[in-house]
Amino acid sequence: MTKRVTALDLEPSGELSEATLAYFAKCEEKLGLVPNVLKSYAFDEKKLRAFTDMYNDLMLGDSGLSKLEREMIAVVVSSVNHCFYCLVAHGAAVRQLSGDPALGEMMVMNWRVAELSEKQSAMLAFVEKLTEQPAKMDDTDREALRRAGFSDRDIWDIASVAAFFNMSNRVAAAVEMQPNPEYHAQAR
Amino acid sequence: MTKRVTALDLEPSGELSEATLAYFAKCEEKLGLVPNVLKSYAFDEKKLRAFTDMYNDLMLGDSGLSKLEREMIAVVVSSVNHCFYCLVAHGAAVRQLSGDPALGEMMVMNWRVAELSEKQSAMLAFVEKLTEQPAKMDDTDREALRRAGFSDRDIWDIASVAAFFNMSNRVAAAVEMQPNPEYHAQAR
Amino acid sequence: MTKRVTALDLEPSGELSEATLAYFAKCEEKLGLVPNVLKSYAFDEKKLRAFTDMYNDLMLGDSGLSKLEREMIAVVVSSVNHCFYCLVAHGAAVRQLSGDPALGEMMVMNWRVAELSEKQSAMLAFVEKLTEQPAKMDDTDREALRRAGFSDRDIWDIASVAAFFNMSNRVAAAVEMQPNPEYHAQAR
Amino acid sequence: MTKRVTALDLEPSGELSEATLAYFAKCEEKLGLVPNVLKSYAFDEKKLRAFTDMYNDLMLGDSGLSKLEREMIAVVVSSVNHCFYCLVAHGAAVRQLSGDPALGEMMVMNWRVAELSEKQSAMLAFVEKLTEQPAKMDDTDREALRRAGFSDRDIWDIASVAAFFNMSNRVAAAVEMQPNPEYHAQAR
Amino acid sequence: MTKRVTALDLEPSGELSEATLAYFAKCEEKLGLVPNVLKSYAFDEKKLRAFTDMYNDLMLGDSGLSKLEREMIAVVVSSVNHCFYCLVAHGAAVRQLSGDPALGEMMVMNWRVAELSEKQSAMLAFVEKLTEQPAKMDDTDREALRRAGFSDRDIWDIASVAAFFNMSNRVAAAVEMQPNPEYHAQAR
Amino acid sequence: MTKRVTALDLEPSGELSEATLAYFAKCEEKLGLVPNVLKSYAFDEKKLRAFTDMYNDLMLGDSGLSKLEREMIAVVVSSVNHCFYCLVAHGAAVRQLSGDPALGEMMVMNWRVAELSEKQSAMLAFVEKLTEQPAKMDDTDREALRRAGFSDRDIWDIASVAAFFNMSNRVAAAVEMQPNPEYHAQAR
Repeated sequence: MTKRVTALDLEPSGELSEATLAYFAKCEEKLGLVPNVLKSYAFDEKKLRAFTDMYNDLMLGDSGLSKLEREMIAVVVSSVNHCFYCLVAHGAAVRQLSGDPALGEMMVMNWRVAELSEKQSAMLAFVEKLTEQPAKMDDTDREALRRAGFSDRDIWDIASVAAFFNMSNRVAAAVEMQPNPEYHAQAR
Repeated sequence: MTKRVTALDLEPSGELSEATLAYFAKCEEKLGLVPNVLKSYAFDEKKLRAFTDMYNDLMLGDSGLSKLEREMIAVVVSSVNHCFYCLVAHGAAVRQLSGDPALGEMMVMNWRVAELSEKQSAMLAFVEKLTEQPAKMDDTDREALRRAGFSDRDIWDIASVAAFFNMSNRVAAAVEMQPNPEYHAQAR
Repeated sequence: MTKRVTALDLEPSGELSEATLAYFAKCEEKLGLVPNVLKSYAFDEKKLRAFTDMYNDLMLGDSGLSKLEREMIAVVVSSVNHCFYCLVAHGAAVRQLSGDPALGEMMVMNWRVAELSEKQSAMLAFVEKLTEQPAKMDDTDREALRRAGFSDRDIWDIASVAAFFNMSNRVAAAVEMQPNPEYHAQAR
Repeated sequence: MTKRVTALDLEPSGELSEATLAYFAKCEEKLGLVPNVLKSYAFDEKKLRAFTDMYNDLMLGDSGLSKLEREMIAVVVSSVNHCFYCLVAHGAAVRQLSGDPALGEMMVMNWRVAELSEKQSAMLAFVEKLTEQPAKMDDTDREALRRAGFSDRDIWDIASVAAFFNMSNRVAAAVEMQPNPEYHAQAR
Repeated sequence: MTKRVTALDLEPSGELSEATLAYFAKCEEKLGLVPNVLKSYAFDEKKLRAFTDMYNDLMLGDSGLSKLEREMIAVVVSSVNHCFYCLVAHGAAVRQLSGDPALGEMMVMNWRVAELSEKQSAMLAFVEKLTEQPAKMDDTDREALRRAGFSDRDIWDIASVAAFFNMSNRVAAAVEMQPNPEYHAQAR
Repeated sequence: MTKRVTALDLEPSGELSEATLAYFAKCEEKLGLVPNVLKSYAFDEKKLRAFTDMYNDLMLGDSGLSKLEREMIAVVVSSVNHCFYCLVAHGAAVRQLSGDPALGEMMVMNWRVAELSEKQSAMLAFVEKLTEQPAKMDDTDREALRRAGFSDRDIWDIASVAAFFNMSNRVAAAVEMQPNPEYHAQAR
């Protein structure tokens, strides 16, 4: 954690807690790295925990959406917002989870070129509109998802993941968060 | 909780836990109502807790920003995104915390008409740009905040609150969340 | 008229005429105030009369649209343009004419959340597009209004009211016109 | 008046009044035509009079702006809004009043290519911003006009003319108003 | 070639070649002028030749699109981009090829007001979207052209001409290319 | 060439010429592949040659800009336009020419995060504006490049390369051009 991971000068006030150190060790073990977003939040462990609780529930918890689909949403939102951090980190996740490097690139660059099921296309069209024009959402948007086969609970999850990355993209942009360089070469 | 508070058909799977019921009772006692956003999340207590943990830390926790300033950020973000739920609920909060009903309306309608300190204007200009054009943020934006007198920790808080409402606005828009009608007449 | 109501230094060159004073007295009597927009124009009585003639014909004259509908159009246009003056003054009018404070807030914040008849939704969708993208209007837009039950004369009135507030919003924005503070608490 | 001048089916309910006929005759004499905008409004003489009163005051009345400058504003606003009617009619006016056909084309197509005085450039930059982003106007915009040499009364006039054409462009777009064909060849 | 035709100081390094002089002479003979775009490129004959080869193939070569249709596309793209050079030069071409001065003005100002065949309207709608939102193109756009009667080869040509002027508009804007004044009065 | 590389059904009318086959063989030898853009144009050898002549002059010919800088421009334009084909092909080129995989990703995702010289930042800011708002270019944009150390000839080259990819992105988007899959793994 010697190298600054954001453009802000924010350091943990003291030692990291046991719990945080254990969490970081688990990341290191499972991912081979501690994602810089976690290091960014580590200056305040309460903020770090709030972030990881929400993140883990949304991206890893129970859902009608597969983990890959949630990562696809993350990347499509980040593509609209041109968020370097999230495109790098979650683009890698799409490549890894799908085993299809080109799919990751398509989500990063322009999801419309991907050959997706109608259901997944409907999902990403909803997500794109929610990101670009939240004020214009209405019943027809929800109906399109239901017609494509999504339950109301799925709609909540699609909306929540897309909304989360609209938050996360903006924190990253505001503080110029740097992604771990290891992501670039993963699953190419 | 008999009347639907969103356009989705999502109900708690069983009884609400003791902890949640206690939390709702405390809201009722302090605010005179249980905010509909909490009822919306109550179908899944894990999601509810993740949401309230993050919300309470950002809006009520320690910060160089006053509670009023955080509410002003919430409303300005929601004004860009035309989010009915958040404009109603947080517009009321600005009126209440400031004791200035016109200030609440200015944040809802167009923050530029308000006579603010240069520091607060810089804060809201940053927040507006971060909401509208996250891809265009750069060092000059952070420098403008520093020059206006904000610390790096303050910048984190400004960014985090603005980012949070970019999330929250989109959940509300996606599910058409209805604000509690009591807000409308408060602090007029 | 001692306090400046715009950011420009423009004062009537002499005494106001009998006719204008009588008109202002009538406003005071009927509305309890002289709208600041009239005071703004009073530096030149010819401009004042041209403005009020057009305004009164459009908003109070014969029309297939109710007065409430015309005020709804005024507020929706002003919401797109974030015009503080018109949102305050005409938001109050919607609350008053409808007896429904929440309806006023919906028009100010995001008309899509209101439960309107299909006819009124078609009207506001037309008005929003005309405000945002006048260059893209075509026959399909007029046809949508006809199908919703509007006559060609109604279409003229919808267009004229929406167009008028696109003018009025820009005068107010350009000179930073201040609304009378009395509006804020009205009909809450 | 046999050929329809808008896409709406709106005809005068009876004979035109003496006053209107006289006004049209004067147009015919001075301009060689009755502008179709006047025929469009003629279905209701009260609306016609309100329109012409405002138009004549703004475009022909006393002002620190020359008639040519007011026409330049009209065309620049209409260029942003791609309003066929106003570009044709007021483009011809710029060509005529300036004796410079290329200047008319520049206002229609892109005012930035014209070699204007700094004062006129400041005027058109203000007008363009007021048209595109009324919500973003603030003191710096007014100050830029004052620095360029405009009085507060001039600022009112610049704003009023720009605002008027934002109205007029939208009426024309909404009803597909057709300009008189004679304009095309004038002052080329 | 004594008067500068762009805002850049770029002159041919030596004498123009025989071939270029012959080409310019042919322009003079056929068009009565050497288009300034050619003079702009003449500082480097390789660039000039690459430009004219592509231009001549696209605008004058074999195609299912008439020359007039290709010029209409050129003008509609340039209208979106407000490109003075191309609107002047290709607006004149539309007037000339169609023998209809008003059609030229409509393409310059707002193609939607023109009474076109459904086929030509589909063509211009495609071209407008490709210019404004290339990232949003998908199969439905190509299908709309096929349904309107265009072959796949026609689609290539529509796309190529629209794309070419998106290039050409940007070169002209970047260097402030001046059109030959002779165009203004042509075919009025 | 058996697999379709665009969404259009366009095949060469006969055998490819000797010259084209030789050119493709040279591509294969130097790049290890024939770029699909060339196969796309191969249905008409005249169009193919016009495209390659312009491309080769701009990207490989003499210029004050390095080849890497020209590729950076290509990618930044394509990032604004979300062009899958060009981001894949030219993103690979940036990685290869710079030997810096992260730099390629930054150009694809958001050039603002890259630590560039002031000169290169000025270049990319110009290119971004020219892509997004060609109508707003003026002298101040050219002056910014001159101040950053670019000659007028360099400005021409920056403009031409940016303009070329605004063309190329639109051809690719309109026909859904597929990049060669080999690019994805290159220079990671």
